[in-house]
Amino acid sequence: MRSHRVLVPGVAAGEQVISGSEATHLVRVLRVKAGQQVVAFDGKGLEALGQVVDASDGRVVLHLADPVPGEVEASLRLTLAVALLKGDRLADVVRQGTELGVARFRPLITRYSDVRVLSQAKLDRLRRVAREASKQSGRALVPEVDAAVTLDSFDAAGAVAYADPRAATTLAELVVTDSLTVITGPEGGLSLEEVGRLEALGATGLQLGRRILRAETAPVAIAAALLAARGD
Amino acid sequence: MRSHRVLVPGVAAGEQVISGSEATHLVRVLRVKAGQQVVAFDGKGLEALGQVVDASDGRVVLHLADPVPGEVEASLRLTLAVALLKGDRLADVVRQGTELGVARFRPLITRYSDVRVLSQAKLDRLRRVAREASKQSGRALVPEVDAAVTLDSFDAAGAVAYADPRAATTLAELVVTDSLTVITGPEGGLSLEEVGRLEALGATGLQLGRRILRAETAPVAIAAALLAARGD
Repeated sequence: MRSHRVLVPGVAAGEQVISGSEATHLVRVLRVKAGQQVVAFDGKGLEALGQVVDASDGRVVLHLADPVPGEVEASLRLTLAVALLKGDRLADVVRQGTELGVARFRPLITRYSDVRVLSQAKLDRLRRVAREASKQSGRALVPEVDAAVTLDSFDAAGAVAYADPRAATTLAELVVTDSLTVITGPEGGLSLEEVGRLEALGATGLQLGRRILRAETAPVAIAAALLAARGD
Repeated sequence: MRSHRVLVPGVAAGEQVISGSEATHLVRVLRVKAGQQVVAFDGKGLEALGQVVDASDGRVVLHLADPVPGEVEASLRLTLAVALLKGDRLADVVRQGTELGVARFRPLITRYSDVRVLSQAKLDRLRRVAREASKQSGRALVPEVDAAVTLDSFDAAGAVAYADPRAATTLAELVVTDSLTVITGPEGGLSLEEVGRLEALGATGLQLGRRILRAETAPVAIAAALLAARGD
């Protein structure tokens, strides 16, 4: 059985006291006991083997070895900039994208977005989903989830691509360096003005094949294809 | 705006009368009217441009042009053989897989499957999901969804691969011909006996990268990566 993974911000060697919801979860749901092995990770890429020294409700004491960089991170730092979606569909994108190895999520408000606001409660939920998916997939890095911004004010360092059925470049043809942001639109797609602005900024149009993907499937397909192609 | 797509089994040129739930959906939900353009598809790969001649509740009359093969099918005939999953998660796999271009789904009962039965009602629902996702994604082919079989009695024509974290071949390294079945296990994975039997049958072990994917994400990632790599 795999060791439980415990989020310990600022992970360091020696004794670490865990409290709050993480401790409650360890004790009540995972029923960890003294002597049990765990892996502590800091959410920023470091992890440390450890052992439970003491576990009581609301307080878990760990003894940790020296932290080392987690070994499962992709060499491609992939950011998915995803238009806001109805209901819980953005959470599905964050969950699957995190498993697949995405480094950062940037929710976007676009011209044709039906949803115009990402509440603090929804943002908190997306961040919880990213934490849980990081644990589940064995990552030491928890992807950042930014507050929503409008596509008009969006700016990104490094290479940028955007999904557009009218574009010529396929996923297999896209030249990927070590840092890439891919923008995907809402159900109604990106507007011609938005595409024009992205082109003016030097972004590459990316067509995802001949079949029409739903707005929540497109970013997941992009992450799966780009990371698999690099053996990443 | 895209034309509505209408499932017409045995699609042929000339007048076609649609009844039942498809007609009700066209009239009550999509509110089609006489004169409107539609695309009729047979679910087996043919489609025909058409026009609504008459639309009344429960009965829609179309006039269709000559059927032609749909243009968005992948050259790879990809079958996903997926272990039964809890709740509605197999429906998510069928929906996303259909959008991505999968040709067939084969639900599997494996050693460590928590779910042991796929009821007729659930199978009917999966087939409805495949039909709707085919329409949405512009496909003329509706992927088959088979009744569940045990992995022990499973047999497949053509190349077979199975997802296994212990395997050496990556998605980028897998040599793919024009027909491929990929088997993915339940949360608990495939048993060593199951892997041994698959190996004896000549199946290729396939590792999906260093991060652990949930059972419902793995088949979607496989479909996205394999089809994108072929520009398919």
